[in-house]
Amino acid sequence: MRFLITAGPTREYLDSVRYLSNGSSGKMGYACAKAARDRGHQVTLLSGPVELEKPAGVKAMDVISAEEMHRAAMREFSRCDAVIMTAAVCDYRPAVRSRCKISKQKGNLHIHLIPPPDILAELGRRKKRQILIGFAVQDRSARKNAERKLRSKNLDAIVLNSPAAIGADRSEIEILQSGKRWEPLGTIPKRSLAKRLIRLAEQLSASRK
Amino acid sequence: MRFLITAGPTREYLDSVRYLSNGSSGKMGYACAKAARDRGHQVTLLSGPVELEKPAGVKAMDVISAEEMHRAAMREFSRCDAVIMTAAVCDYRPAVRSRCKISKQKGNLHIHLIPPPDILAELGRRKKRQILIGFAVQDRSARKNAERKLRSKNLDAIVLNSPAAIGADRSEIEILQSGKRWEPLGTIPKRSLAKRLIRLAEQLSASRK
Repeated sequence: MRFLITAGPTREYLDSVRYLSNGSSGKMGYACAKAARDRGHQVTLLSGPVELEKPAGVKAMDVISAEEMHRAAMREFSRCDAVIMTAAVCDYRPAVRSRCKISKQKGNLHIHLIPPPDILAELGRRKKRQILIGFAVQDRSARKNAERKLRSKNLDAIVLNSPAAIGADRSEIEILQSGKRWEPLGTIPKRSLAKRLIRLAEQLSASRK
Repeated sequence: MRFLITAGPTREYLDSVRYLSNGSSGKMGYACAKAARDRGHQVTLLSGPVELEKPAGVKAMDVISAEEMHRAAMREFSRCDAVIMTAAVCDYRPAVRSRCKISKQKGNLHIHLIPPPDILAELGRRKKRQILIGFAVQDRSARKNAERKLRSKNLDAIVLNSPAAIGADRSEIEILQSGKRWEPLGTIPKRSLAKRLIRLAEQLSASRK
């Protein structure tokens, strides 16, 4: 199979220095890329700015912002059989990016944030045969919000975890497949979760044929 | 001598997941900590979230936000002879930090940013015998702004570089000592700059006695 895997955070610049982001380390996505490669799949890894070494045997592409990740994902999507969207793409960005560093002489500052393109939702609308697996980071009404995300974005499965998972090596997770019940996996290393997700994508893809 | 060296960015959280930050890698500060240690000095390294290994033989303390770095710097200051403030401390933070992740169902978002405590300015007011070396990242009226920072914060020297230096291994820099002229150093590795700054602090400290 051909996998498209997204990883890491995006950065949404406010000026030439400051940005909005999150603590995503890329570990989950890089682990998925390695796991897919180890199962003999072709992998494109679309990575936000992280400090990890690119896995050998994987086609890696770097992006910074949600817009860049959106463009690259759309370009790659038609060529792939499964997408695992581990990236913690910013869902707010400054409406305006100042070309120069904003002087702090200005005192207080009001900034206006707008949503960048929603990559998963768009992939969900475009998908034909592709398997689409997403992640939800939730700290309130977690299952309910994740279920809504699964449905509204037309995903095949969603992995739910909490903000504590961000940047960690292991996390407490639950998986929901479309049309099935929640499957709590407990606290497991991201490497184990990665293997599990690749096998899940293989099964879903096989059952679709 | 006893050095206090700050390094890396700070993160200013908007909610449980999203934050404002910058791309500071900590390389400059960690290089200064090693250079000071190698010259036989005692070093306290106050580090924002970076992906670097802590240098051996250095007292290292981790902080996340500008407020935390401020508190730790004030606590350490009276015990030290020189401060090299390489940290790219955020000078804006969200006025309110939401305890839970803000739902993106909300559409556009307005956030109100306020300045956290100005660490360098406060150290400048408190300083007695201490040597204080700061950094300026500027892309407009660079020298003029750096000169104002040197004076207004009562620094002994300031290192000027551009946003391109953030996260890089080398950068084009100029140094200004209080009461002297600008000294352009060209593009040099951060490791070389670190050694130079430690020697400068030694000289300034010696000439003050």
